[in-house]
Amino acid sequence: MNARPDNWGALLEGLRRRDRRALARIISQVEDRKPGWQSAMQSIFALAGNATIIGITGSPGAGKSTLTGALATGLAARGRKGGILAVDPTSPFTGGAILGDRVRMIELAKHNIFLRSMATRGAMGGLSRATRDVARILDAFGHDIVLIETVGVGQDEVDVLRVADLTVVVCIPGQGDNVQAVKAGIMEIADLFIVNKADRPGTDDVVGDIRAMQRLTMGKGMRQANILKSVATSGEGLDAIIDELDRLQPIVKADPSAANRDLGTEVRELVEDDLLRLFWDKAGGREKLASLLGEGKISDPYQLAQALFSEKDIAGLSGKDKN
Amino acid sequence: MNARPDNWGALLEGLRRRDRRALARIISQVEDRKPGWQSAMQSIFALAGNATIIGITGSPGAGKSTLTGALATGLAARGRKGGILAVDPTSPFTGGAILGDRVRMIELAKHNIFLRSMATRGAMGGLSRATRDVARILDAFGHDIVLIETVGVGQDEVDVLRVADLTVVVCIPGQGDNVQAVKAGIMEIADLFIVNKADRPGTDDVVGDIRAMQRLTMGKGMRQANILKSVATSGEGLDAIIDELDRLQPIVKADPSAANRDLGTEVRELVEDDLLRLFWDKAGGREKLASLLGEGKISDPYQLAQALFSEKDIAGLSGKDKN
Repeated sequence: MNARPDNWGALLEGLRRRDRRALARIISQVEDRKPGWQSAMQSIFALAGNATIIGITGSPGAGKSTLTGALATGLAARGRKGGILAVDPTSPFTGGAILGDRVRMIELAKHNIFLRSMATRGAMGGLSRATRDVARILDAFGHDIVLIETVGVGQDEVDVLRVADLTVVVCIPGQGDNVQAVKAGIMEIADLFIVNKADRPGTDDVVGDIRAMQRLTMGKGMRQANILKSVATSGEGLDAIIDELDRLQPIVKADPSAANRDLGTEVRELVEDDLLRLFWDKAGGREKLASLLGEGKISDPYQLAQALFSEKDIAGLSGKDKN
Repeated sequence: MNARPDNWGALLEGLRRRDRRALARIISQVEDRKPGWQSAMQSIFALAGNATIIGITGSPGAGKSTLTGALATGLAARGRKGGILAVDPTSPFTGGAILGDRVRMIELAKHNIFLRSMATRGAMGGLSRATRDVARILDAFGHDIVLIETVGVGQDEVDVLRVADLTVVVCIPGQGDNVQAVKAGIMEIADLFIVNKADRPGTDDVVGDIRAMQRLTMGKGMRQANILKSVATSGEGLDAIIDELDRLQPIVKADPSAANRDLGTEVRELVEDDLLRLFWDKAGGREKLASLLGEGKISDPYQLAQALFSEKDIAGLSGKDKN
């Protein structure tokens, strides 16, 4: 599969020269699993490893995009390079123009800040896998910090945030039960809470709600995440947030339990992603399942599964792929 | 793969006769994916569909085992048949003797209540898959209710509880931050809270904590779960709990969004389980990964993944399986 070198060599050379078009192109080709992507990621892996990956989550309307952009700009003012990866597990689209991002992208580009959007790719739950790859490419490009901004929804969000070295949860005052936005599984992995739009009434109530939630959910020996306030639109509180992120970075990086440091797990994910994609996409498993379900003749899951896959089909699977 | 009929015919006949030894043997053979298990599960699927599956979770020490046993006994007194499936995602052992269950099993057998224990099987995250199969076998055996008792830990627990038609969360007073036991992702799927050991001081505090947690985490339009008190060791409160479970059953069964009613998802899981097991176990993927990691020569996940799997290996995979 690695026979065709395509334009990978030139693109990787462009990445080393910090050419933003090469960066965007490499991301697209890796996302699309173009032939040679594994070898390209090997070169990228060798270049990467310097950036801290920061996940930023919170409910829609919490001002995550503004805050993330302001943080990247604030980092740039301190001579640091922050790239942004906006991940929306709820959107079926991918490639750039989601989340109303065109305008934002142009605005950020003025400050030389790279923004990339990602959404669902395939149905294989491969979004966290893709997020990890793209974050690594941004890292290899020379970013000091990769800000992953994700919409707060369920298990997909938790999986995406597993890629991050540290996780920031954004809340806002004035939405009655807004801490509800801090979904299951997020509370436990939060390294920092930000109450944004802190010029609005009810800010201290939100801080109280977060404290209460922390008391109820925190396990023994866990770090208690700090709570900072900001008004991202005016820049208020941003310096303190960047200071706190700087304080946290060495702490989380030193934590050996960090999921993204687990090589075995990552290899397993890569292999399983490939294997399942081969089966469902390339070998037509998805269409076959849809058509079997559409016929509605069989309601028995075991029989349906057997109709789709038996061990001896494996040979045919590979043969089909060679066409 | 379905060539050898083994003893499936006799065992299925035993299941229809409600022979408990046949039941136990079928569960073992399905868990072990003995040849012919799919056809056997097809027959079992046709017999099943009458039982309500109730998941019971909570922190260790909450008295879940005693409560579950007492509920099954209480059901028996009302002429109903409740079987118990004890699932421990934290234990590497499986087959019966986990959770100190030998004594318990003998005790329950006196009341003609079947208890089965399950723990981690394989590393494929297939525990929820296995739980679903075993619950279905207990259903086909003629149980009205299958009580799945699981230890409260992380994502595995949530996956196991997805199999249940309704979920009960057990808390106890007197453990400072004990509602912390209600882990991420569980609060949202709870249909009923039980404060067990309610003869101890602090019972009302726990009820208050649960109410607070519900206010913080509940989404709009969600059913608010009731909170009942019990002393499982004395039987106090059990009648009210069984009444509430009876009230809930038709409500949850009528909910079309119930995950276990999603045929496509189940087929997908079955197929992926098979495919991944074939790769990691039968084709030696696991050993190969362990040996590659052990050598420590490669730290690059993409290179490791390629060493383990490329599309053309699929043919070899199947060939190997035929030996």
